[in-house]
Amino acid sequence: MQEIRLALVGFGNVAQGFTQILAEHEEEYARKFDLRFLIVAIADPVRGSLLDPDGVDLGALLQASSQPGGINSLPGEHPDWDALQMIQSAPADALVELSFTNLTTGEPATTYLTEALRRNMNVITTNKGPIALHYDQLAALARLQDLHIGVEGTVMSGTPVLRVGRRLLSNAGIERIQGILNGTTNFILTQMETGQSYTQALQQAQAMGYAEADPAGDVEGFDAAAKVAILARLVLGENLPLAQIERTGITAITLEQVQAAAAAGNRWKLIGSLSYENGKFKGRVRPECLPISHPLAQVSGATNAICYSTHLLGDVTIIGPGAGRLQTGYAVLQDLIAFYCPECIG
Amino acid sequence: MQEIRLALVGFGNVAQGFTQILAEHEEEYARKFDLRFLIVAIADPVRGSLLDPDGVDLGALLQASSQPGGINSLPGEHPDWDALQMIQSAPADALVELSFTNLTTGEPATTYLTEALRRNMNVITTNKGPIALHYDQLAALARLQDLHIGVEGTVMSGTPVLRVGRRLLSNAGIERIQGILNGTTNFILTQMETGQSYTQALQQAQAMGYAEADPAGDVEGFDAAAKVAILARLVLGENLPLAQIERTGITAITLEQVQAAAAAGNRWKLIGSLSYENGKFKGRVRPECLPISHPLAQVSGATNAICYSTHLLGDVTIIGPGAGRLQTGYAVLQDLIAFYCPECIG
Repeated sequence: MQEIRLALVGFGNVAQGFTQILAEHEEEYARKFDLRFLIVAIADPVRGSLLDPDGVDLGALLQASSQPGGINSLPGEHPDWDALQMIQSAPADALVELSFTNLTTGEPATTYLTEALRRNMNVITTNKGPIALHYDQLAALARLQDLHIGVEGTVMSGTPVLRVGRRLLSNAGIERIQGILNGTTNFILTQMETGQSYTQALQQAQAMGYAEADPAGDVEGFDAAAKVAILARLVLGENLPLAQIERTGITAITLEQVQAAAAAGNRWKLIGSLSYENGKFKGRVRPECLPISHPLAQVSGATNAICYSTHLLGDVTIIGPGAGRLQTGYAVLQDLIAFYCPECIG
Repeated sequence: MQEIRLALVGFGNVAQGFTQILAEHEEEYARKFDLRFLIVAIADPVRGSLLDPDGVDLGALLQASSQPGGINSLPGEHPDWDALQMIQSAPADALVELSFTNLTTGEPATTYLTEALRRNMNVITTNKGPIALHYDQLAALARLQDLHIGVEGTVMSGTPVLRVGRRLLSNAGIERIQGILNGTTNFILTQMETGQSYTQALQQAQAMGYAEADPAGDVEGFDAAAKVAILARLVLGENLPLAQIERTGITAITLEQVQAAAAAGNRWKLIGSLSYENGKFKGRVRPECLPISHPLAQVSGATNAICYSTHLLGDVTIIGPGAGRLQTGYAVLQDLIAFYCPECIG
């Protein structure tokens, strides 16, 4: 039985979802993959810190994490460390980086990932910032030391669109990618079809926890643009700087436009796309008025989808969740299995 | 550079599509996978036979195959062999089995695959018969000798639904599978929504080459049932004999029913499903009247789709082609890459 010692940066929703999956399937993974995942270190500025080289009890960790400082009440050591100090001293095989997203600098996550790779850890992140902005330098560092970077959770959470694109469809010749890559904006547009104004729909999205208090990252298309950059780099092998992705959000879409589209059998969707134009791939995020027969027109609410248009297969569309604690936790799990039991997975 | 010598049973549409892919991408696969695929043996009762241990010229083979007996006009030997004799004497590393489908006995394909495994070849088939009926015995034989069986093309041609289900979603806990698994019946039902009668729609499907002269395999649900059996065995690990899959076709669906469904915002689809009931998976093929919001309700024409309902991710739906010469040829290619360059693929 191989024991994999994990250090976690952040212990919010995704970390809790991931821990819940591990807790519920510990014996199954031991049997199927001959792997045991131990959480040996945590740094979370609110919930507390932990160092336990034998691996913390996962059920106790989940319970403790529901209250501020709760992790500090668990058995084990509780070092006064920040994430970087944890990475520099924790006895871990892999870092699971779940800090907040920054699409301007990719920090502090990029520093965390870099430091972990330098210290010979495999790394997993569900954080779009470092991957959209600095994937090449991280990948070069990983390659030098024969380490892995897991990024499945950065696009559509645990829906395995990156592995499908990279591994299962790349030989079919991907000529175009179109996606509904942001759940908040798709929820808002779907609500507007029922007659709500943009403002009403946004408020409902906020009330349901989909949209942040400052919704700009979603409604102005920044989140979707970061995912377009990640798809370009990871699936197409193209380096498209985030700043070169044409970006228009949904804030100018009116109820009248949505209703007029519906009357004509069409639907407005915020589409992130990569299309081959004039000898290179062009990245875009913009509202598009799709005919109802388009595979992405039917994707409603907070659900996400990607349509890969390929030379050999034509269109292959994958529809699934784009967020969620268990959903994103599953992406982390799949990345870990891909590192430590590659024959078990794509 | 590893050279992989292939023997082909049958040189019809799928074999030609596969050969076209190889011919167009020979240099790319050599570079990316360090593999060169050589076609060294062919047995086709109409188009001819071939033995060429150095590998036939793929372009010449494609041209020759367009006419009866044409393969016999190529350079190389043209043994007077049937498929079984070819398998017993060809110097091949892998068999690509593309003979006709028989859902009652799985023959002669099962004998071909068995004989090839006994002679230490990896095997690939796009033929539902042997996999729906005899997968376990074939897999046991393969395991004994550390050989591979490639079956991606048996369900939804090159749309990688089997790999997605087996490798990318299995850890998410698949609780139900629902699919539009037969293009002919979906085309007929889609046409009926435009006002055609069942008979008119069937005639159009036949005119377009979707439906056979004897359409029973499609319209009575036999084809979809075989795919349900394959999904049960390959994705869920459940052995569901074909005879135990409840099966109702679309022949009793009337234009009035289709129109009444449309008026109520619903759509009739022929759904193949596996659902967990009373402690075990139940397999079914039957027309179902789906609400238009169901991810499968939107899949029209000859397109196919599978919706995996999972414990951790909820629903993940994959929509793509269900047939076609290049599409099914791609499935063969992917199986080969999975055998000989497993790190390149899922």
